[in-house]
Amino acid sequence: MSDNPSFVLNAIENVSYEERPIPDIADNDVLVKVHYLVHGRIGDFVVTNPMVLGHESAGIVHKVGSNVKNVSVGDRVAVEPGATCRTCEACKSGRYELCPDIIFAATPPYDGTLCRYYRVPSDLAYPLPEGVSLEDGAMYRLSLWPVGVHSVANLGGFRSGQSIIVFGCGPVGLLCMAVAKALGASRIIARLDFAKNYAATDVYLPLRFNPGETKLLLGVTERGKNSLDLVIDASGAEVSIQTGFQVAKSGGIVVQVGMGTPDIPINMSMLYNKELNYKGSFRYGPGDYPLAIQLVAQGKIDLKPLVTHRFSFQDALVAFNTTKAGKSADGKGVIKAIISGPDISLEDN
Amino acid sequence: MSDNPSFVLNAIENVSYEERPIPDIADNDVLVKVHYLVHGRIGDFVVTNPMVLGHESAGIVHKVGSNVKNVSVGDRVAVEPGATCRTCEACKSGRYELCPDIIFAATPPYDGTLCRYYRVPSDLAYPLPEGVSLEDGAMYRLSLWPVGVHSVANLGGFRSGQSIIVFGCGPVGLLCMAVAKALGASRIIARLDFAKNYAATDVYLPLRFNPGETKLLLGVTERGKNSLDLVIDASGAEVSIQTGFQVAKSGGIVVQVGMGTPDIPINMSMLYNKELNYKGSFRYGPGDYPLAIQLVAQGKIDLKPLVTHRFSFQDALVAFNTTKAGKSADGKGVIKAIISGPDISLEDN
Amino acid sequence: MSDNPSFVLNAIENVSYEERPIPDIADNDVLVKVHYLVHGRIGDFVVTNPMVLGHESAGIVHKVGSNVKNVSVGDRVAVEPGATCRTCEACKSGRYELCPDIIFAATPPYDGTLCRYYRVPSDLAYPLPEGVSLEDGAMYRLSLWPVGVHSVANLGGFRSGQSIIVFGCGPVGLLCMAVAKALGASRIIARLDFAKNYAATDVYLPLRFNPGETKLLLGVTERGKNSLDLVIDASGAEVSIQTGFQVAKSGGIVVQVGMGTPDIPINMSMLYNKELNYKGSFRYGPGDYPLAIQLVAQGKIDLKPLVTHRFSFQDALVAFNTTKAGKSADGKGVIKAIISGPDISLEDN
Amino acid sequence: MSDNPSFVLNAIENVSYEERPIPDIADNDVLVKVHYLVHGRIGDFVVTNPMVLGHESAGIVHKVGSNVKNVSVGDRVAVEPGATCRTCEACKSGRYELCPDIIFAATPPYDGTLCRYYRVPSDLAYPLPEGVSLEDGAMYRLSLWPVGVHSVANLGGFRSGQSIIVFGCGPVGLLCMAVAKALGASRIIARLDFAKNYAATDVYLPLRFNPGETKLLLGVTERGKNSLDLVIDASGAEVSIQTGFQVAKSGGIVVQVGMGTPDIPINMSMLYNKELNYKGSFRYGPGDYPLAIQLVAQGKIDLKPLVTHRFSFQDALVAFNTTKAGKSADGKGVIKAIISGPDISLEDN
Repeated sequence: MSDNPSFVLNAIENVSYEERPIPDIADNDVLVKVHYLVHGRIGDFVVTNPMVLGHESAGIVHKVGSNVKNVSVGDRVAVEPGATCRTCEACKSGRYELCPDIIFAATPPYDGTLCRYYRVPSDLAYPLPEGVSLEDGAMYRLSLWPVGVHSVANLGGFRSGQSIIVFGCGPVGLLCMAVAKALGASRIIARLDFAKNYAATDVYLPLRFNPGETKLLLGVTERGKNSLDLVIDASGAEVSIQTGFQVAKSGGIVVQVGMGTPDIPINMSMLYNKELNYKGSFRYGPGDYPLAIQLVAQGKIDLKPLVTHRFSFQDALVAFNTTKAGKSADGKGVIKAIISGPDISLEDN
Repeated sequence: MSDNPSFVLNAIENVSYEERPIPDIADNDVLVKVHYLVHGRIGDFVVTNPMVLGHESAGIVHKVGSNVKNVSVGDRVAVEPGATCRTCEACKSGRYELCPDIIFAATPPYDGTLCRYYRVPSDLAYPLPEGVSLEDGAMYRLSLWPVGVHSVANLGGFRSGQSIIVFGCGPVGLLCMAVAKALGASRIIARLDFAKNYAATDVYLPLRFNPGETKLLLGVTERGKNSLDLVIDASGAEVSIQTGFQVAKSGGIVVQVGMGTPDIPINMSMLYNKELNYKGSFRYGPGDYPLAIQLVAQGKIDLKPLVTHRFSFQDALVAFNTTKAGKSADGKGVIKAIISGPDISLEDN
Repeated sequence: MSDNPSFVLNAIENVSYEERPIPDIADNDVLVKVHYLVHGRIGDFVVTNPMVLGHESAGIVHKVGSNVKNVSVGDRVAVEPGATCRTCEACKSGRYELCPDIIFAATPPYDGTLCRYYRVPSDLAYPLPEGVSLEDGAMYRLSLWPVGVHSVANLGGFRSGQSIIVFGCGPVGLLCMAVAKALGASRIIARLDFAKNYAATDVYLPLRFNPGETKLLLGVTERGKNSLDLVIDASGAEVSIQTGFQVAKSGGIVVQVGMGTPDIPINMSMLYNKELNYKGSFRYGPGDYPLAIQLVAQGKIDLKPLVTHRFSFQDALVAFNTTKAGKSADGKGVIKAIISGPDISLEDN
Repeated sequence: MSDNPSFVLNAIENVSYEERPIPDIADNDVLVKVHYLVHGRIGDFVVTNPMVLGHESAGIVHKVGSNVKNVSVGDRVAVEPGATCRTCEACKSGRYELCPDIIFAATPPYDGTLCRYYRVPSDLAYPLPEGVSLEDGAMYRLSLWPVGVHSVANLGGFRSGQSIIVFGCGPVGLLCMAVAKALGASRIIARLDFAKNYAATDVYLPLRFNPGETKLLLGVTERGKNSLDLVIDASGAEVSIQTGFQVAKSGGIVVQVGMGTPDIPINMSMLYNKELNYKGSFRYGPGDYPLAIQLVAQGKIDLKPLVTHRFSFQDALVAFNTTKAGKSADGKGVIKAIISGPDISLEDN
């Protein structure tokens, strides 16, 4: 049977629609009818073969394997995109995001989810709680959410009452702020006005800033007064990272979210004089997805403002190009764009 | 009363001997008659006032305050050099090494210990166990020891059965290897032959090396086989740090020991693709001194090979100059030099 | 000068008002004009000498020592009641609540705070944020708050999205629920209706319950479905503790808050088959007070419903007797009673 | 093909030898030709069906599935006995020992390993390092080893320089002492002379002891001097557990190893006044097996003295009965007994 319309990347700038076979499922798998978020970046990976695009999604369970207990046909689910080997040291010690054999949807050479049906191990399909209706669209957008949870809650160990500064006001940066807010931050510092409206408590900077001025502006003293418990850099910009090192508290954590950034000079004396803890953040780990869903279900976050553009499946190419350009023909800047599935309109849900 | 001969640094290259008053002690203090290790580096700090030199020591308790319970007059003790405020967040949360008001012996503008009598809060005077005799000289050398403990055991979280690579074969690097060995390392990789004789299990590199070749030489694969649990950089060299990032395991820890190093470019994609944890190490924290003493007492480490030169108090200037030059007149390289106290010869003890 | 009216416990049932001297303060101390919460229990400690009663308070800074930087005269502060030695292993390793030399206000043989002026090391006086007005009385009640923070956030490691069951609906139990709610609990289970109105999300039990029925009622299966991440017992009742062991998840934490409870039989096979982590909670540790204040300041908790009775300083004895009886003459049950300071009425503030 | 002689438990006291089919293996499995340790206890589990006995083993790889990379045919391996679901929260968060669907060899209703061939997922077959020869028999005995590692290193968080007391001088207690010694304990306290010869540093008690006397004997003061960092109870005796609570340091860890013990009264005021951490230990978790093998390979432990009896496969019933009786016909007490595989004599290896 072949009834699985798919949007395929054959080469850079070369995409096509194809009919692909509906995947078979094994005893522990489920088959999900999906929607997508468009995610422009492909990171360090080189596209060598045609593959199906799109790697973040949610959908409706279409079929379940014989051993599946956690979801049923018809359930609305968010899909965690990385399938791991489950047998390596990383998988078994609670850091499956570091599995060297991880199969990540839409990361070359593996196909993404921009097709009608997508097969996934059942433990990676998370049922959406009642409060999260399809109608309000939260379903589709859940999937980016765990990046912020992983960086702020998991790696950053962020706790109620702590303070944070976030560099980068793209979706990842905004979501990091939102997570910090949901977890009870005492102070959230960012840059753009949109951030303030969205989740930040302070907007502190002109477009051009440098470490010394920022330190002064924030009132960070040599003895550490007003310094921040957690720094998130989701910009990849040298000035941001250097500023982050300056304003982090002694013993503080600086999380570097992966942004395809080249080598960047680090202030070594800040690193060791303050015994900073500089951590890379790449994917999602144990507990990140469930917490992400929980925070949305509790109404602690509003994902709506992040979705600026919506496309039908037929307009997938326009969607990718718009995302790549960073704005649509009408000049409206893209934060996140959604593509509806081949036979489900966004309005229907 | 003034009977406290002291060796004072007035300015760079300008030192003198002075008689200074014997310090008063408060109820919780002890007065220690000291010996010294010469420590050439003064780090980022600028010398602006004359100060007494030398900041690592051990000695004999000469007098105790009325509340002191842990040591008695005559006890042989190792002296932890940093006195902290005990009231700030860092002090109270178990990271007193980050106290912004720490008073560090011989770090400008505070006087060091190169005088006959030195006052110290009693909890910073650690009794030497019976097995550690004055005669074998271990007493004097204990003091550098905690740097390795802090970097490897505390920040590095090193556990029995793990693997480590250490860059830098000065005293700190050698001691990091020794700590790893004492804690049950499965594999200790370093560079120079001396390291091998001392504590490393593998010597792996020509004098010139680069990240790619080293990775190959160690058999570190893309999937992480043979990668290292812990990387210690005690060299401050860019090539070492870059190599460390390449050979660290996913989720591994890289500890940067403070070396007065300038800004260095970091491989960002290694940092976040492997979710590395890059930590600065500056001083000693809770438990570091006691564990250091314990390891020596258990005979798990031999500090003797690290002491290459011995000087009398009268030759303190020669000692500093020799340390600075890196070798004595006879061409013998300096690892560590000891200066005996004003009235105790090394032989006497 | 002697202008410090104090309420003193000479022996059980034997109290008196006395004029005591205003305490001197050292360089790092502050003198606080205090209000009190009445706390009936004196725990395991035996009263042998007359002492000043009351051990939880907040007030206004009256005088500061020469080194004090964190507060000024006139500041409204919450006072943390335990002064520690700051030099023992516990103090230095981040668990000062375990200091064997802790001086705890109003725990025999040390005087409590039920006098006009109270001396305290400045780092134990926490400025109340602007949002916490004297007028709403939050100031006085803050002090019990950290017990819940210590048990739930610190020892219980409770995180957003987790579930909790709390046994005991006295103030400590209620505050544990409130902390869990403030930290983002997905489910809070307790017993009495008051708890539901206050902070619980589920009220699940008749007055008499047993482990098996409760397990059934909560839908906890043998495979652990619906089991709880954290169990708090603030009741000291055997049936509660046994029930807690049954409904805790595998690897879960059970926190036993100190309640003067005698030996109680524990289900060993639950303990080890589920590898439970059973922890005692006694006092407050690093970070507990600041977080407690923060949560109140953020409006995440309403302490008002817990204060059921108010007394003037002159009626201190009535206050203690009412607290001991558990209800006032009009039959109203006591949760917490406040006694105003000698010269400040509650209305004034 | 049926060439798999097996020793089967049909009912209590009713065993037989049978020919069972050689198990098929899947792509990720290996087939191991096994030897056995006799383990008398079956814990809380009820035997309802005939099953193959023996649940700890090591052997030689006979066949490997198509995806297996970590071992090859002919490799000598230790076999970890619990196969987990790999998809539940416990498995994914680094505590697979708590998987509710764990299939544990020889725990009813699952067959044990007392047959010639045993199938196991390849990641549970750990290659024995070169230093661990078949000839010295270490191979066979490795398997009990991880119980001590799990209790002392993993749950107990035992670190170099810490002190420990172990109750119970059966194999588990002895191995806990041995692990503590291998990890660099400063002091290991136990009871019987055998313990002292084996791994303890102090033998401290007459056969009958009580908490108060033991505290006195060990010099444990009210302020915690000489108290122990870690307490392991592998006896299940009330007096031991009560004594352990008395001599544990404030904030210390008490690990209860599963011993089929009934409910036991716990000293609540010790638990909360000292904020003890009482943890149940049941099985092995991530990293326990690899560390156990490593410690043997490094020669830090001698397993030989624990093996007191050896039997051929034909004498399996005698072996079980001897183990159950606790001594052989000649009166020699059993610590551990080994049964060789059907066609491999112990001498051959």
